[in-house]
Amino acid sequence: MLLEAVYHRPKMNWAYAYDESTIHLRIRTKKDDVDQVFAWAGDKYAWENTQELIPMSKAFTDSMFDYWECEAKPPYRRLKYGFLLKSEAEAWWMTETGFQQERPKTPDRLFDFPFINPVDIFKAPEWVKDAVFYQIFPERFANGDPSLNPEGVLPWGGQPQRDNFFGGDLQGVIDHLDHLSELGVTGIYFTPVFEATTNHKYDTQDYMKVDPHFGDAETLKKLVDLCHERGIRVLLDAVFNHSGRTFAPFVDVREHGEQSKYKDWFHIREFPLAVKDGIPTYDAFAFEPMMPKLNTENPEVKEYLLKVAEYWIKEVGIDGWRLDVANEVDHQFWRDFRQTVKAANPEAYILGELWHEASPWLQGDQFDAVMNYPFTDAVLDFVVRGTLDAKQFAEAVGRQLTLYPLQASEVAFNLLDSHDTPRLLTLCEGNKNRMKLASLIQFTYPGTPCLYYGDEVGLDGGQDPDCRKCMEWDTSKQDRELFSFYRKLIEVRKSLPALRTGSLRFLKAEAGEPVLAFERRLGTDRVLILLNNDAAIQTVRLENQPAGVWKDAFSGRIWENRQEGLDVRLPAYGFAVLVPGE
Amino acid sequence: MLLEAVYHRPKMNWAYAYDESTIHLRIRTKKDDVDQVFAWAGDKYAWENTQELIPMSKAFTDSMFDYWECEAKPPYRRLKYGFLLKSEAEAWWMTETGFQQERPKTPDRLFDFPFINPVDIFKAPEWVKDAVFYQIFPERFANGDPSLNPEGVLPWGGQPQRDNFFGGDLQGVIDHLDHLSELGVTGIYFTPVFEATTNHKYDTQDYMKVDPHFGDAETLKKLVDLCHERGIRVLLDAVFNHSGRTFAPFVDVREHGEQSKYKDWFHIREFPLAVKDGIPTYDAFAFEPMMPKLNTENPEVKEYLLKVAEYWIKEVGIDGWRLDVANEVDHQFWRDFRQTVKAANPEAYILGELWHEASPWLQGDQFDAVMNYPFTDAVLDFVVRGTLDAKQFAEAVGRQLTLYPLQASEVAFNLLDSHDTPRLLTLCEGNKNRMKLASLIQFTYPGTPCLYYGDEVGLDGGQDPDCRKCMEWDTSKQDRELFSFYRKLIEVRKSLPALRTGSLRFLKAEAGEPVLAFERRLGTDRVLILLNNDAAIQTVRLENQPAGVWKDAFSGRIWENRQEGLDVRLPAYGFAVLVPGE
Repeated sequence: MLLEAVYHRPKMNWAYAYDESTIHLRIRTKKDDVDQVFAWAGDKYAWENTQELIPMSKAFTDSMFDYWECEAKPPYRRLKYGFLLKSEAEAWWMTETGFQQERPKTPDRLFDFPFINPVDIFKAPEWVKDAVFYQIFPERFANGDPSLNPEGVLPWGGQPQRDNFFGGDLQGVIDHLDHLSELGVTGIYFTPVFEATTNHKYDTQDYMKVDPHFGDAETLKKLVDLCHERGIRVLLDAVFNHSGRTFAPFVDVREHGEQSKYKDWFHIREFPLAVKDGIPTYDAFAFEPMMPKLNTENPEVKEYLLKVAEYWIKEVGIDGWRLDVANEVDHQFWRDFRQTVKAANPEAYILGELWHEASPWLQGDQFDAVMNYPFTDAVLDFVVRGTLDAKQFAEAVGRQLTLYPLQASEVAFNLLDSHDTPRLLTLCEGNKNRMKLASLIQFTYPGTPCLYYGDEVGLDGGQDPDCRKCMEWDTSKQDRELFSFYRKLIEVRKSLPALRTGSLRFLKAEAGEPVLAFERRLGTDRVLILLNNDAAIQTVRLENQPAGVWKDAFSGRIWENRQEGLDVRLPAYGFAVLVPGE
Repeated sequence: MLLEAVYHRPKMNWAYAYDESTIHLRIRTKKDDVDQVFAWAGDKYAWENTQELIPMSKAFTDSMFDYWECEAKPPYRRLKYGFLLKSEAEAWWMTETGFQQERPKTPDRLFDFPFINPVDIFKAPEWVKDAVFYQIFPERFANGDPSLNPEGVLPWGGQPQRDNFFGGDLQGVIDHLDHLSELGVTGIYFTPVFEATTNHKYDTQDYMKVDPHFGDAETLKKLVDLCHERGIRVLLDAVFNHSGRTFAPFVDVREHGEQSKYKDWFHIREFPLAVKDGIPTYDAFAFEPMMPKLNTENPEVKEYLLKVAEYWIKEVGIDGWRLDVANEVDHQFWRDFRQTVKAANPEAYILGELWHEASPWLQGDQFDAVMNYPFTDAVLDFVVRGTLDAKQFAEAVGRQLTLYPLQASEVAFNLLDSHDTPRLLTLCEGNKNRMKLASLIQFTYPGTPCLYYGDEVGLDGGQDPDCRKCMEWDTSKQDRELFSFYRKLIEVRKSLPALRTGSLRFLKAEAGEPVLAFERRLGTDRVLILLNNDAAIQTVRLENQPAGVWKDAFSGRIWENRQEGLDVRLPAYGFAVLVPGE
């Protein structure tokens, strides 16, 4: 047994409370190296009467490791535990101090989950698991009120540049809510809507004011109310890492330098403010002079931003915040942010923008979830770029699922493109079949899927600013077939609870193969997802399925499970979402 | 190269800010498997101009792994990084997604330390590094005011029982401060002093009142003031996990049951309160009915306890809190506790009682340090029980040092015994040489050492309550030779800054060997600690030391470094603490 590969550490993703009575334990072993794993667990104050061996299951596997999982329900909320690892030839007991072949005589040096304290349990809003999000970049979605147009606005549909404007606004969104309802989305994530100078509004001028080119607080309130009537939740973008250059406190510092009472609102390295060799004399987002980094440790700044966070929840009724450049802001700020936001609305969703591993933010005290770019990468690598085969794809996403507590994975924000990436159709080089396949994975996977505005009607575009084209409202120019696909995809997700909250298990994911099959299971409900990531027709055979027929939730087609297995013939880039048939 | 053994994860002990400009990076590899490791690091927004390969050093090693370390000083406080691992035959690049043999083309999938935010940096009080603590169990230290004696007090020096009293009090401590000054201690950790029914006072009746058998707030204030005059800091015991059975709110619940307005101050599983088959119908410390667990999530309870924490700092001037059963209280409570305590006294020391791995509490937002029982275990296993050889000892403590950020190890509370364990002399079965050797390690090791009252004059005692004997004040019955040893030990530690804040490196720690040598280094200062954990005389040879003479800080004896090495002859259980001689 390769003991060097075995890994466990208390708390984090390895031992966490899932609810008030349940602890999840996980341990890692070398791939295909260990046959059986048990958690050896009990109450430290009543060890002799409570100790038990709990069998663990191989929940996930990546290219190098297997990950085993079990749950424990300690009656007095305390759990002392170790592990017993067995292969044909060997058996090892793992404690906090290492490995030994004899069963430890006492539990003294075992791992400890001292007590399940409810306030420390990671709780994310339930509704997010059922939501289907739609991301809107307001300047480019629809122009509903030309009287608000910025100066020099260009005709709708022109080529987006870093600094041009097309007049999109909140009234435009209100005007097209039917489009969203028809599609079936139940959540909108808006990139920033507060006053700013740019078209993307990531350089906030006034956090308490809707951008006048977009509307006003009243329009926003009306929009949120209308969304709520339709069962659509609204997420706004909190750009709290940095402000804009025209944010009043920064203007004051620009004007008064060291004499400004706002000088500690930012991180100024040197007065007077200047940009030397492209580098501002103050901290900024990247080295962007128009985006000075806010000093979120300053109590005045913190109070101001927390008031902003609370205000838009209380006044306008938004359902959560997406946090821009969340990883560069201090943890202490986010802890207080969570307290403030959840006090204002316990059901609010707190979604951090993080592109890398996010464990330090996903322990229950800060975010509910992060934008799941590692998932994006894996799907694109498999379906679009072809750099991963089915096995590697399953390993990449499996590894990702082991990194966080289940609660965070259940509300992960799964996106395939955004205002920060090329559009999916463009990444697919116009191949709609690949695009659909990628989206199929996204919509049948744990977490909440998000569609980037326009993808559903065939909008294309390369890297920013090209991915921020105007929405196409001329139905004759829309790809209605694509629209029908996404509408169906959403309908299928909504109709099958297991697709939203079921567990995930890969049934077929082999090296060198383009065929992938996985199962979502919720109680006795099962859904089988099969897909063919290849230009040739493929027949997928699933063995050991219960007898009977399976029905494709998309096509309605029936497949029969015969003695040799359940054979499902998939066309090029085809797929099936199977539920037990009648 | 055994890639399964390689481990790194962002934040925690693996990547943390040491100060406002420094990030420490660590990575683990299989023992003796990798020749060179580099961190590949730079600013993600200026990667091409800032990326560099930073050589890492093998800082520690345990029985299975080597741990490599380096520091990075990113000019804009942001660090994107990966690793390059080299052995003779192979070279691997490690990113967040795995290992590859080609240098990654972009930094996109590297690890990320997004920004050094000062408020998130783990800062522990500087003074703790220089402190020498002395633990006092007040009921057994000295009876200075017989008028406060509890009813039925026994003559000083009798056999301690679970429930008997000998009349020790705070005036007794005041009377014997000369003893502490003579010994040289600079900190006292008192087990609880607040009103309670037991002799150990871990069943608090009133957190705002000094136990009347110990004195009153005025006596405590006087004691703290007198200590401060002598340069001695004072730590009190915060028993916040549970109260006593006679704590007024619990009395109210006992009397009024579900009608009590204090019923949510505790975790009551069933009314009326009862004990069934030895298990109370409410959560408690262990299953101890007289110690009901406090509901520290209840805002009223929290407010009350935080006021207690603040009160004794502000009113009496204590220098910190030791937190009883700290691991069973919620993290959110401790985060607020830290804010309150550090606001009242930024130099206060927050010390958690944790017997197991404490990472979740040592990230800078909760405790400064924990009681270092894993260190205790390792020293006792090596010197006292003989179950570890020199190599295994170095591996056990080395592993421990890799678990936490350096800041926490610098102020770790290193103890060899306490009111919760048998006394050191008893563990050593009366062998004073072994006792001295264990203490020598403790006092030359990183962290703050703590001596349990009476150890310095030869007090013995088995497991609680036997380890809580009355202090021996009759000098003819004290072991004055032992006292001189401890006084010298403290003097040596105080005179050599490298022993307190220097880095640690093992020079000799071989399998099957009883001889151990390690170095503490601070700037250009070096101290060599050599010890012989054997009944036979041993000569320790250290090679590659600079030419010249070394002087033993204990004996004054001079040892010369010859061509063949520095040979130091150590008697049975002997030791040397060498500094470059004149």
